[in-house]
Amino acid sequence: MKSLSSATQSVRPHVVIVGGGFGGLRAARALRHAPVRITLIDSRNFHLFQPLLYQVATGGLSPANIAAPLRSILKNQANVEVLLARAESIDAAARRLTLHDGTQLHYDYLIVAVGVRPHYFANADWQAHAPSLKTIEDATRIRRRVLLAFEAAERESDPERVQEWLTFVVVGGGPTGVELAGAIGEVAHHTLRGDFRRIDPTQAKVLLVEGAERVLPTYPPNLSARAAESLAKLGVTVRTNTLVSDIQPDRVVLQSGDQQETVRAKTILWMSGVRAVPFADALAAATNAPQDRLGRLIVQPDLTLPNHPEIFVIGDVAHYAHQTGKPLPGLAQVAIQQASYAARLIRARLRGEARPPKPFRYVDLGYMATIGRAAAVANLRGVHLHGWLGWLVWLFVHLMALVAFQNRLLVLLQWAWNYFTRNRAARLITAEPEPQPERERQIA
Amino acid sequence: MKSLSSATQSVRPHVVIVGGGFGGLRAARALRHAPVRITLIDSRNFHLFQPLLYQVATGGLSPANIAAPLRSILKNQANVEVLLARAESIDAAARRLTLHDGTQLHYDYLIVAVGVRPHYFANADWQAHAPSLKTIEDATRIRRRVLLAFEAAERESDPERVQEWLTFVVVGGGPTGVELAGAIGEVAHHTLRGDFRRIDPTQAKVLLVEGAERVLPTYPPNLSARAAESLAKLGVTVRTNTLVSDIQPDRVVLQSGDQQETVRAKTILWMSGVRAVPFADALAAATNAPQDRLGRLIVQPDLTLPNHPEIFVIGDVAHYAHQTGKPLPGLAQVAIQQASYAARLIRARLRGEARPPKPFRYVDLGYMATIGRAAAVANLRGVHLHGWLGWLVWLFVHLMALVAFQNRLLVLLQWAWNYFTRNRAARLITAEPEPQPERERQIA
Repeated sequence: MKSLSSATQSVRPHVVIVGGGFGGLRAARALRHAPVRITLIDSRNFHLFQPLLYQVATGGLSPANIAAPLRSILKNQANVEVLLARAESIDAAARRLTLHDGTQLHYDYLIVAVGVRPHYFANADWQAHAPSLKTIEDATRIRRRVLLAFEAAERESDPERVQEWLTFVVVGGGPTGVELAGAIGEVAHHTLRGDFRRIDPTQAKVLLVEGAERVLPTYPPNLSARAAESLAKLGVTVRTNTLVSDIQPDRVVLQSGDQQETVRAKTILWMSGVRAVPFADALAAATNAPQDRLGRLIVQPDLTLPNHPEIFVIGDVAHYAHQTGKPLPGLAQVAIQQASYAARLIRARLRGEARPPKPFRYVDLGYMATIGRAAAVANLRGVHLHGWLGWLVWLFVHLMALVAFQNRLLVLLQWAWNYFTRNRAARLITAEPEPQPERERQIA
Repeated sequence: MKSLSSATQSVRPHVVIVGGGFGGLRAARALRHAPVRITLIDSRNFHLFQPLLYQVATGGLSPANIAAPLRSILKNQANVEVLLARAESIDAAARRLTLHDGTQLHYDYLIVAVGVRPHYFANADWQAHAPSLKTIEDATRIRRRVLLAFEAAERESDPERVQEWLTFVVVGGGPTGVELAGAIGEVAHHTLRGDFRRIDPTQAKVLLVEGAERVLPTYPPNLSARAAESLAKLGVTVRTNTLVSDIQPDRVVLQSGDQQETVRAKTILWMSGVRAVPFADALAAATNAPQDRLGRLIVQPDLTLPNHPEIFVIGDVAHYAHQTGKPLPGLAQVAIQQASYAARLIRARLRGEARPPKPFRYVDLGYMATIGRAAAVANLRGVHLHGWLGWLVWLFVHLMALVAFQNRLLVLLQWAWNYFTRNRAARLITAEPEPQPERERQIA
């Protein structure tokens, strides 16, 4: 076991942040003037703007447009060091983190913002047939699968098999499932129109399967209804109150009440389950912290773990139910506000403030989803928007939230282009990345 | 064996084009008004603008910026059908092509524009240690290797190993080698400045190894000298009259005359040898056509193969020595002019013109290479440009040559951005694609 060299050994308290997503990055920035030294650990060298990942998966944007190198973002913040590494285990008593290569890191404060990843629960074998969408590699894999399905249909002569290739099933009617299904509908009905000589891409069937009684079940019912309308316009068939009971390479079995139906489809995409990443389990084991059934860590009102006021857990991997009785949703806004709270608390403690902090409170600024071209639904503090107006707000909010200014320009330009031409230029079929273990290979 | 369905069976002569690069694409377009039906075969779904591939490899551009879907480009040309497939063998007597999946295709005219690919000749084992640059996957692999080298150096404590990680060897001083080495020099000396806390990226060594007595050996000597000056400014050390006698994962052995030197380096890039793709060998075997030592097909003055006036070979895979006594260089311009010639000849034959055609003549409009920021060398019909002016011309020519208008805008925007900020936003370390066989996996 080696320990990191002298450069990190100084007298300032050491804040280690695990994860460079919305929460981790905001935490680092919020501590830029604090008298601490910060180590930000991520297994990838970039911050990823996940809300737009589905646009990479459907050829509308390039991976680099929604990613920004972490070192580049934090270049001018002298008190932070970025480490391309994966946190593997923790000795909470000794306040020591062990990385994938055995390196050990002592911390005074630990901010855990490691997020969740796709999970198939009891049906691990479905993963091979129904890819999910969480990483850049997931996005280019789905892009490849969707585009190759049309290519295969063009080569196929058996009409039944043509229809199998032209059937796309998206499992999960939450925001990502809705946005992805809408985008595939648009690709089939508009982008690829005229591209083929034997098949008609507009004959493609896109099926969105949701277990609840409506899509976007966490949204107000009227916005769910608007979303369903917009999906229908893009040729997406919505199947609510429907569960998936089996997935095979060429078919999915749907269950609605007592009724079972087999849908033959070559492309099945899993936008349904997520679970905390493995480090959350290691942390729970080391601290006796409680986890929920998704492996998320159940945090105290101040976002720390019981008996560990020095360990904060924020973002998707945190289960915070003190405000509404049920856990806060996995939204960038929640992670960002929690990061600011944790940073504020650390600064207060460093100033020696003894007073117990007020519990964290999430201020819901709103949430939104887009469905194809010029249609979105948004709930902004009770104001419900849909259609064009919702889309303009969605567009503005997402552009402004992108981290790098260059990316804002590039994304705006491509959105304008895609809007007017209905083209999607990033329709590249590129090599399939190796199946597993992906995270391991990212770090040399 | 199946044969393609009725849609392609019509009375018009069938022109099959193998390869959707500069030559193949131009041939298809030049035949847009001809009374033929065309099938364009490529194993990738996009046309790739290879001259800018090194910018993807160094994080300056995204893959989709230099690629355009073939179906999209040819969407409105009704007489062409695009097939995502790989030509595997040929029965020249029966005029029948066999594809990777056994499908057979009858042709009346065949235009072979399959190009070349990296080759390591007697040293096939070097391929594992020294990747080359021909495909999008090659570019993202090199990008990954180069960026991970800096990350590994940052993690390393042994100074000797730090220097190994910070040493980059580019083998081959032709245009691609020069451009790549210059771009890596720029990444180390400008882009990454300030990104790390333990290493100083400007301490990186970039070595460009060339066997001839100067870099860009096919250029006029004064331009080679200018290029060497520009390289030196970017911290690239040029080693001419130097051959590579061994490559291992962590070192390369250089041979200059009697002197041998071992350079310890973790990143070695092969920009040296190319060879015709395997289909060229299949074609040679089927037609008894002569090949040169690089496997290129030696063509007649009218670009056809001996005894096969219906088979044209164009672009990098063609060896055409009738004009200057030595083969024409592997440039986009050569492929494009040859494609136009072949298309003109086919149209003339369809009109029943019996007169033997004038031999193909390449009109050299010029060639150029860029070295880092605001420096390029160009020879435009005898007018030699360098520095700023060369760079402006290089920039304009390359922008205009990009196929899709959207890509021109996106590339211009990113170049402007990179120029002013010296940043390169597409510095993503993404998954390593599977090693081999890559071409096979592109087609379902």
